[in-house]
Amino acid sequence: MQENFTTIQFKECKLHLLDQRLLPTRVETFVCSNYREVEFAIRDMVVRGAPAIGATAAYGMVMAARELIEHFGEQDFRQRLQEAADFLDAARPTAVNLQWALKRMLVFYDSQEWETPIALLEALRKEADAIYEEDIATNRLMGKHGNELIPQRTTILTHCNTGALATAGWGTALGVIKEAFASGKEIFVYADETRPRLQGARLTAWELHQAQIPFKLISDSVAATLIRDGKIDAVIVGADRVAANGDVCNKIGTFMLSALCKVYQVPFYSAFPVSTIDFSLSDGSLIPIEERSASEVTEIEGVRIAPEGIEAYNPAFDVTPHANMTALITEKGVIWPPFKENLAQLLTHMEQK
Amino acid sequence: MQENFTTIQFKECKLHLLDQRLLPTRVETFVCSNYREVEFAIRDMVVRGAPAIGATAAYGMVMAARELIEHFGEQDFRQRLQEAADFLDAARPTAVNLQWALKRMLVFYDSQEWETPIALLEALRKEADAIYEEDIATNRLMGKHGNELIPQRTTILTHCNTGALATAGWGTALGVIKEAFASGKEIFVYADETRPRLQGARLTAWELHQAQIPFKLISDSVAATLIRDGKIDAVIVGADRVAANGDVCNKIGTFMLSALCKVYQVPFYSAFPVSTIDFSLSDGSLIPIEERSASEVTEIEGVRIAPEGIEAYNPAFDVTPHANMTALITEKGVIWPPFKENLAQLLTHMEQK
Repeated sequence: MQENFTTIQFKECKLHLLDQRLLPTRVETFVCSNYREVEFAIRDMVVRGAPAIGATAAYGMVMAARELIEHFGEQDFRQRLQEAADFLDAARPTAVNLQWALKRMLVFYDSQEWETPIALLEALRKEADAIYEEDIATNRLMGKHGNELIPQRTTILTHCNTGALATAGWGTALGVIKEAFASGKEIFVYADETRPRLQGARLTAWELHQAQIPFKLISDSVAATLIRDGKIDAVIVGADRVAANGDVCNKIGTFMLSALCKVYQVPFYSAFPVSTIDFSLSDGSLIPIEERSASEVTEIEGVRIAPEGIEAYNPAFDVTPHANMTALITEKGVIWPPFKENLAQLLTHMEQK
Repeated sequence: MQENFTTIQFKECKLHLLDQRLLPTRVETFVCSNYREVEFAIRDMVVRGAPAIGATAAYGMVMAARELIEHFGEQDFRQRLQEAADFLDAARPTAVNLQWALKRMLVFYDSQEWETPIALLEALRKEADAIYEEDIATNRLMGKHGNELIPQRTTILTHCNTGALATAGWGTALGVIKEAFASGKEIFVYADETRPRLQGARLTAWELHQAQIPFKLISDSVAATLIRDGKIDAVIVGADRVAANGDVCNKIGTFMLSALCKVYQVPFYSAFPVSTIDFSLSDGSLIPIEERSASEVTEIEGVRIAPEGIEAYNPAFDVTPHANMTALITEKGVIWPPFKENLAQLLTHMEQK
């Protein structure tokens, strides 16, 4: 099973992004010619999904480095590169993968002396490629680990989009679902439409339809009765940032699902690469929640659906307390409670490597 | 405080309905010239909201009676009138007010001998007017009783539309909110947009904006974090049918809110006229849930938001168990648990009158 589309592609010094603002009705590529256009693409959600944003930002750094060398030579290069990183970082506040990828590029730059600008640019390009390739490999591993949690016949509910479109390829939560389906299990999916940006209706439905996985699309508030009535065997979502105690910040609506799953004892999983864990934050209350424009709620595809002159409250994410999580699925394996202790152990293990 | 619009108006033998499919961007009237057009208006949601559907159907019966007399005279009139009632009744299955109003018109017809067709048509018109007028009076009483539950400073969350647009006038749940605001209390409202038909975004936002009640519009899945974080003092919703034990069938998404309110101990109220109670049903599991077209989920205002060729599951209502209800607000007063016993007492009291 392989996608017949490419979310992110770097070629001839330009970043080609599948324009996710236009799917599913139009399949078009948005081409970024410089890192300012990359910042716009992240901010305006041409590309979205925590891992995809990370890989995109890494290529943004390659483009920034090239432009800085061309315009200013090596003078103040480190400082200017930092400024470009800060600029890209400000595009969206919640997903930690953005920070993570930018930091990795800067640390890589600092790690050695560069003999020529060309050698530097080639090396940065290779590091960005590594982030991209590792993300796909990571997702495949996550799929394998997550699939161990899925019984032979399972109806899974998912929220937002966590597939190949949200990553360099394959996907996180949707990657687990695709892996389970590809391994021959009888999988049925309910996909939340995920207001206000409708990533479920526009993107997840598109990916599931292409992958020929049986599913139905639902309005977000339909999930509650499905969960209560025993129609859902498991819920799997992604994550935009995970605190050290296992609190999961993810697309708005995730907490609602988790609270209902807790009441009705339905397994609730979040799948993400370890790069999504922010060990600097002790709990989820410290994660900044992006509040987006009211127009995302009052308009759909440019069509006004609410009166002019009204206010809307539009947080893009919410935090699900770790107590509502059954298990966390990562490329390093499935993490069970107690999350704080087991995540700390994972960190120690990673640092020892 | 008075609305500057009219939801339902019967004049010159035609029924003028404010076309709720076009609000808030267009304020237009849909004119029904015969009862088949009334059936269409109910089915296609030109008019919606359980009490509004009831009053509309009553006028539909007046129009049917006139047409039957004109075409067939008095031959088989009772049977033809019954057929017209059955036809109107089939327009939407869940809201019991539709059945209730049709039955009331038929019982009224059966209650006496009619000397002339003109006397009959005039009397039927007066009975429909009575249903209409009583609904407004009922809503004002409901508002007064409900307002007793509202503290001086209260943030209220509501779902769907239960205002003047959902009734002959004033409203049920939104009527309580308007009464609290009009009585000088400091009221702030969060209005759920209410996917898929967006009655909250399109209709409730329009009514709140016109009434100058401070509010913010939210996506349905935002409510969960507001409830958890203590931002909501009470939730008030309407009802489309209430079972004898107090189970409340209402717009999809109501159950989700009630389950969260139960977990986080937020008062949860449903406001409705006693005509919404279906004493023939012992519990909510017996209430038929209307499943509407997938296109309501896959398209918004004619704009495609999901891929072609996919399936959607689109139930229009859900049932909230009475155990999740703090109290029920009716024109006869506020009903507290135990609901089954207290509703039975209400029925006995009504029958004795």
